[in-house]
Amino acid sequence: MSVHLPDDVAARLKNSEELIPTIAQDHKSGEVLMLAYMNAQSLAITIDTGRATYYSRSRSELWEKGAASGHSQKVISISLDCDGDALLLQVEQVGAACHTGKNSCFHNPISLSTETGGKK
Amino acid sequence: MSVHLPDDVAARLKNSEELIPTIAQDHKSGEVLMLAYMNAQSLAITIDTGRATYYSRSRSELWEKGAASGHSQKVISISLDCDGDALLLQVEQVGAACHTGKNSCFHNPISLSTETGGKK
Repeated sequence: MSVHLPDDVAARLKNSEELIPTIAQDHKSGEVLMLAYMNAQSLAITIDTGRATYYSRSRSELWEKGAASGHSQKVISISLDCDGDALLLQVEQVGAACHTGKNSCFHNPISLSTETGGKK
Repeated sequence: MSVHLPDDVAARLKNSEELIPTIAQDHKSGEVLMLAYMNAQSLAITIDTGRATYYSRSRSELWEKGAASGHSQKVISISLDCDGDALLLQVEQVGAACHTGKNSCFHNPISLSTETGGKK
């Protein structure tokens, strides 16, 4: 699938040649589901189709979220951050976002150094 | 400030030598505030102090969020993702998270290709 990133979007990216860390957030619950990466091509496809499509660093290829698992993400909105090098997607997640079967990939707590949450 | 990352935390990171993209989320509103980077040292300091401390890629140095602006982040909890290469902080944000004065750094919308949100 070849889709071109709109020029006005490309111009707003800090570097359209670099991978862009992309946060997917459940648009209803506000839960942060996962962090993945987009390149210009996957962002273009996401804009065009409304389905979250990322770039896999380990496989060096595009992947439409849920293409294999069925756990797709319908994109409700996309926001770029203030310096143009991170993205936030509001999504409607089908099934679990994490390959472990959990809602969110962020399910491994790291304890602060005291029970009250750090020394402060 | 020299603080050592606890061995059990280091062991859970995919690569403790790499920068780790870190999402800060308002623990009350659920708003995603920003994405920044941590290295092992800044994560150790954050765990120890309960104050979000990042690593600046442009300045190549640690920065405690709000040290200059006063817009600090008290860390309520830290979660590591399923493959150990991204972090999510639940924070209590003092003032605005973004240097522009906005609550969140993600304030630049990118439009989907149709009003209904992509072709789907």
